[in-house]
Amino acid sequence: MAPGSIFFLPHGTRIFNRLVQFMKNQQIKYGFQEVITPLIYKTKLWQQSGHWDNYKEDMFKVLGNDPTKEEDIIDDDGSEGLHDYGLKPMNCPGHCLIFSRFERSYHDLPVRFSDFSSLHRNEASGALSGLTRVRRFHQDDGHIFCELGQINSEIKNTIQMLKDVYKVFGIEGDNIEYFLSTRPEEKYIGDLITWDEAESQLTDVLDEIVGRKKWEIRDGDGAFYGPKIDVLLKDAFGKKHQVGTIQLDFNLPEKFHLKYRSADGSDLNRPIMVHRAVFGSLERFLAILLDHYQGKWPFWLNPRHAIVLPVNLTHVEAAEGIQKQLVGDILNDEVQVSPITGYNFYVDVDSRNDTIGNRIKDAIQKGYSYIIMVGDRDIENGTVAIRSRDNRKVSNMTPIEVRNMFIELECQYK
Amino acid sequence: MAPGSIFFLPHGTRIFNRLVQFMKNQQIKYGFQEVITPLIYKTKLWQQSGHWDNYKEDMFKVLGNDPTKEEDIIDDDGSEGLHDYGLKPMNCPGHCLIFSRFERSYHDLPVRFSDFSSLHRNEASGALSGLTRVRRFHQDDGHIFCELGQINSEIKNTIQMLKDVYKVFGIEGDNIEYFLSTRPEEKYIGDLITWDEAESQLTDVLDEIVGRKKWEIRDGDGAFYGPKIDVLLKDAFGKKHQVGTIQLDFNLPEKFHLKYRSADGSDLNRPIMVHRAVFGSLERFLAILLDHYQGKWPFWLNPRHAIVLPVNLTHVEAAEGIQKQLVGDILNDEVQVSPITGYNFYVDVDSRNDTIGNRIKDAIQKGYSYIIMVGDRDIENGTVAIRSRDNRKVSNMTPIEVRNMFIELECQYK
Repeated sequence: MAPGSIFFLPHGTRIFNRLVQFMKNQQIKYGFQEVITPLIYKTKLWQQSGHWDNYKEDMFKVLGNDPTKEEDIIDDDGSEGLHDYGLKPMNCPGHCLIFSRFERSYHDLPVRFSDFSSLHRNEASGALSGLTRVRRFHQDDGHIFCELGQINSEIKNTIQMLKDVYKVFGIEGDNIEYFLSTRPEEKYIGDLITWDEAESQLTDVLDEIVGRKKWEIRDGDGAFYGPKIDVLLKDAFGKKHQVGTIQLDFNLPEKFHLKYRSADGSDLNRPIMVHRAVFGSLERFLAILLDHYQGKWPFWLNPRHAIVLPVNLTHVEAAEGIQKQLVGDILNDEVQVSPITGYNFYVDVDSRNDTIGNRIKDAIQKGYSYIIMVGDRDIENGTVAIRSRDNRKVSNMTPIEVRNMFIELECQYK
Repeated sequence: MAPGSIFFLPHGTRIFNRLVQFMKNQQIKYGFQEVITPLIYKTKLWQQSGHWDNYKEDMFKVLGNDPTKEEDIIDDDGSEGLHDYGLKPMNCPGHCLIFSRFERSYHDLPVRFSDFSSLHRNEASGALSGLTRVRRFHQDDGHIFCELGQINSEIKNTIQMLKDVYKVFGIEGDNIEYFLSTRPEEKYIGDLITWDEAESQLTDVLDEIVGRKKWEIRDGDGAFYGPKIDVLLKDAFGKKHQVGTIQLDFNLPEKFHLKYRSADGSDLNRPIMVHRAVFGSLERFLAILLDHYQGKWPFWLNPRHAIVLPVNLTHVEAAEGIQKQLVGDILNDEVQVSPITGYNFYVDVDSRNDTIGNRIKDAIQKGYSYIIMVGDRDIENGTVAIRSRDNRKVSNMTPIEVRNMFIELECQYK
């Protein structure tokens, strides 16, 4: 009913939301301000941005049906299809509109917007594939509006962020490859001085942050609107994936007449725009992680943190009490309204009338990070018997110790 | 460029995200599982759900442009417009698809899905108004699939949740009104026994939770597909707003052939579907809150928690140190990757070269909850001078005490 659009079931949604929350917190650290922008824009926006000329085939067209026709009067500027909209394939034009909505001064720059909107691209149905090639996806999208002289520090921060983020997933060093694509020989916009200065800054940053000779140049391979850095990951199996991207753009600020007042008081300065993403498509990144972890999610991303197994039916009540202690205040009956902040874990109880051995096997197969058993002796001692998914060794811990261990694992991104 | 679609700027996004996170945590408490579902569905889904017959005028139509035409082959069932999609105005059909995707047993019920997707409705441009009547909005949407005998406890929980949530915003008692709309005289679907049983359960719940004679009946005013409870709020100015809704639906489960295996082993039982929302439209609820608080956001929702004012330029460094302490680990330079969980506050520094009096006035006007001053004596004592937006009284506190106060305010939803 919706080819190329993913239905995220509850556990997939948990992982998706964790990745988004993780990235939002990194973006705050790097000075991004999140915005929420529309999904459908009038065709004339896409005409202005140039997408209508260059990208129309890949866009979904949206038809309104406005009986009052008031827009005809307002918009009667001869543009084709007055009730036609385009479903956005990218966030950049929306962010340009926000930038241009207010007067901006050099004091305000860099302005950095982030956005997790749904994006739609009309991929051919033959091209659709799992989570990697879809029609609806989400980017950890960000746009930086800055002065030419700020490129160096902005790109440096962006690469630092990429490295820090990938490291959390165990990907670092030679498993990240960087490619700088420079000015095309013939078709390009903007002046040579700007191109040369920008490319020189990008080169300096790559030398400094990535290391000399640790990155490659793709001569003349830049977009017509600016040079770019592509970042490829090698997963646990050596397979390469393009994820991160950093693109300078001299074109959109021109098309949207973006300007700011500079230190010398002139107010017709064009900012430079940087498009950047770390995960790229969240759907595709999730596909990489699925391969990478082979279903063995690290604790902090696992939609199944732990399961409590009462040894027999007399221990069910105790098991449910331990579940509540581990989940956290979100399930605390004494708190009328769940708190907005705090550590909350996904802990289930399996009280089916089956042998403990069978239930452990089932829990491992389902990928719970921890398996917690509760029997007579545990209840007597106020402890639980806990083992990890990957190690048969059983430890005895109090529920509070278990909860503190969970918090520690989450803090360490283990 | 996008009439009826809201651009949320950074501070609006902060409030929006807080409301969503708040509601997600309440929903977990009440057993909802969040899902993420597509925005565009083939026309034939909307034909199956009945939206195409009854709601077509209010929907945006989406046109694909698939050069491979493979779908023509797959979908060649004579349905009109093979590449036509509808942009969803509601989440219910998507949730029905998820329910029907798996075999369900009475053990699994109630199944509760929540969803914060963008929804689009093609309101006439003349009807558009601020945040209250828009074309793109977000619901704190939820659907419960349950047995007839579970209606009572599900609706009881839903009303309890409504009451708990509204209370957080200071709305309780007589400022919440409940209306039960019952079976229409003539046009309705489903059998009389089910209607009578459902209405009797709703009546019992309202009597128990809201109180006898504390709610009103709207005889014959239910939808053709089931009875419903509408919830109206009175804001600080006595203005009434319809926000929450609880609708029973005997129709969609029929249309989507939903079924579950019952305790007696028969597998053609239709679940009953409940549509429910607490905020209703998040955009509209935000409009109510804007009126309600008149810009004086409570601390936990405030996009501007505090501002630090160095008394003069020699105190700027100390002020920035205090800012970092108050913001939390998300800005901690010693932590390479920002943690995913923890208390993080929005704290700014105003180090403009202006009198402290002017900067305090400006901070109050901007709505910061707390104003924190740092001068020589404060630095010497390791304290700050802090006052609230609404009270001139200045206290001396250590940064740690301030941070603990902030955490307490957030936990208490103050």
